[in-house]
Amino acid sequence: MTQNVLALTKQLIARPSVTPKDEGCQSLMIERIQPLGFIVEKMDFEDTENFWALKPGQSQEAPVLIFAGHTDVVPAGNLDKWQTDPFSPTVQNGFLYGRGAADMKASLAAMVVATERFLSQHPNPKGSLGFLITSDEEGPFINGTVRVVDTLMKRGQRVDMAIVGEPSSRAELGDVIKNGRRGSLTGWVTVHGMQGHVAYPHLAKNALHESLLALHELAHKEWDAGNAAFPPTSCQITHAAAGAGAGNIIPGEFKFEFNFRFSTEQTAEGLKTQVETILQAHQLTYDIEWKLNGEPFLTDQGPLLDACVESIREISDRETTPETSGGTSDGRFIAKMGAQVVELGPINATIHKVNECVSIDDLEPLANIYQRILEKTLL
Amino acid sequence: MTQNVLALTKQLIARPSVTPKDEGCQSLMIERIQPLGFIVEKMDFEDTENFWALKPGQSQEAPVLIFAGHTDVVPAGNLDKWQTDPFSPTVQNGFLYGRGAADMKASLAAMVVATERFLSQHPNPKGSLGFLITSDEEGPFINGTVRVVDTLMKRGQRVDMAIVGEPSSRAELGDVIKNGRRGSLTGWVTVHGMQGHVAYPHLAKNALHESLLALHELAHKEWDAGNAAFPPTSCQITHAAAGAGAGNIIPGEFKFEFNFRFSTEQTAEGLKTQVETILQAHQLTYDIEWKLNGEPFLTDQGPLLDACVESIREISDRETTPETSGGTSDGRFIAKMGAQVVELGPINATIHKVNECVSIDDLEPLANIYQRILEKTLL
Repeated sequence: MTQNVLALTKQLIARPSVTPKDEGCQSLMIERIQPLGFIVEKMDFEDTENFWALKPGQSQEAPVLIFAGHTDVVPAGNLDKWQTDPFSPTVQNGFLYGRGAADMKASLAAMVVATERFLSQHPNPKGSLGFLITSDEEGPFINGTVRVVDTLMKRGQRVDMAIVGEPSSRAELGDVIKNGRRGSLTGWVTVHGMQGHVAYPHLAKNALHESLLALHELAHKEWDAGNAAFPPTSCQITHAAAGAGAGNIIPGEFKFEFNFRFSTEQTAEGLKTQVETILQAHQLTYDIEWKLNGEPFLTDQGPLLDACVESIREISDRETTPETSGGTSDGRFIAKMGAQVVELGPINATIHKVNECVSIDDLEPLANIYQRILEKTLL
Repeated sequence: MTQNVLALTKQLIARPSVTPKDEGCQSLMIERIQPLGFIVEKMDFEDTENFWALKPGQSQEAPVLIFAGHTDVVPAGNLDKWQTDPFSPTVQNGFLYGRGAADMKASLAAMVVATERFLSQHPNPKGSLGFLITSDEEGPFINGTVRVVDTLMKRGQRVDMAIVGEPSSRAELGDVIKNGRRGSLTGWVTVHGMQGHVAYPHLAKNALHESLLALHELAHKEWDAGNAAFPPTSCQITHAAAGAGAGNIIPGEFKFEFNFRFSTEQTAEGLKTQVETILQAHQLTYDIEWKLNGEPFLTDQGPLLDACVESIREISDRETTPETSGGTSDGRFIAKMGAQVVELGPINATIHKVNECVSIDDLEPLANIYQRILEKTLL
């Protein structure tokens, strides 16, 4: 039975799935798609719930398209500033309020409803349709999509296209889709000097003083000019700490953390080398640790991008803009499978904020856009 | 009755006068000097015990010389690393061990013993002899010498010379005396930028990034070349803090603390102006707070300096070196009275450390040097 998107979105919001909890959201989705012929596998790791579902198509050669998303949400934040209970879905003035409404429970509901409608009209499409759903996208993303993708790749599962339900829209539904993401690389540096008394600077080496020009270079260097798809690579120093507690002690140690958002003009290994070259050029004695959050990916052409652009035009009468700006998403992990990846979801103005909401008027159109994409790619 | 310096030093060490506590040290001193004709005034402020004592001389025109010092000590620190109980004075291998042995209970004992011996030989000297003793030199120095000096200045009390018992000696007793101190000025700056997400650097202003060149200038500028009496002025950034806790947030605020140790080539007001000029030249939006810990002072000639140099030569057969390096002391407050100020005390190698000690062989010579200075200045 087909149920409308609003009803399912409300059911999902009512489950307080603060990351990495799922609270039954995935069961709700599975109950709806399993009767349609999907083979469903739970792939839980540690504290994270995941599921992978596939309805094989009639043709081995036809594409495998998956819907990807997450059931977990960020914490509600300051409850006093919410006008409604964040886990009691509430319709007011044409909006559905609740934590996760836009990021991304409306998308999950629209995916399920689109799948139901598509398969009721086309019970045996040529292409295969899948779901890759996690409860660890808002957290440390260690036991979620990344591990499901590992598992799928080990068994040789092909994925050609992925629609990630991230809220990509800016002002109107579908005005922006994300067809790529910058890479993200974090570094932690400890610079070693020699502690001493401020009265005797010649006997000490101020680790902060030594580091300033190197930091300036990291902060202001033009790493690249970007390219047609990506803005220029950016390095932000996000934390800095020096000081021994007393005002008369010259700090012998200085710690800082920085994060790169990088274009396809760079690689993580290349950036690491450049950073170390700078630190060494300034003759710093340091330790460094790295975490690669994701290499950049780009879906700059192909049938998925075309299908998205055309479906948005047909359903919403709108020309979409593919962009690669903004934060990371699980799309980066799926891109490793060689898949075309597009993020397409509702307006993101209220995500991660109090009074998160989604427009009621966007819910059915979103399902319709998803359904149209399936029609364009899997038949 | 004259008692030797060792005995009184041990009595003082046995009183655990961790700053700002006095624990009866001042009473011990007062008991010894009051019978010699001193008028003693307790001048306690808040948690701090102070006393001022004066034995007026025969001539109004003759100098007023005071012994100045503190009975408080820094905390013992890691007791496991002490070979003896820090508050149980212990003689071992020619050294007297205990917290405060060198800083500055041996000096206090030597002052008392020198006074007893001097006055027993010269009961009515021309000059006046005083004591200004506090229990708040190792702490925030708010309610100690600075307030006693204020009180004395308000009543018009003249002080021409002050011997501060700080442990000035480096390798041998009297090899170094301090005839001045650099000024000390501390500043706290908060730089304001605009917080944002690392994925959208163009929408934020990283307060740390903005500050780096200004910090570099503060840290590396040549403020002056010093002069005959003072090393060059030095600026040390002692604390720095930026970061909102999350690795994906561009810090909208950056706080740092710095400290100047400055020569007589500078004034506090002049330094403040120069710092603000630098911050403004780098177009920073900032708040700044200042604390002047002390203006620089210098006793570069005069009868007190001469008396010290000669007395050390006569008692210890040693040429002393007047220096102005090192940390601050209460001498800066007494210098405001227009007094010549010299710091003269035992070897400072172990002060503020575990196993603080003073050489037994230096105790009587220190009292003898003090006594000789009184003979040269007050007769």
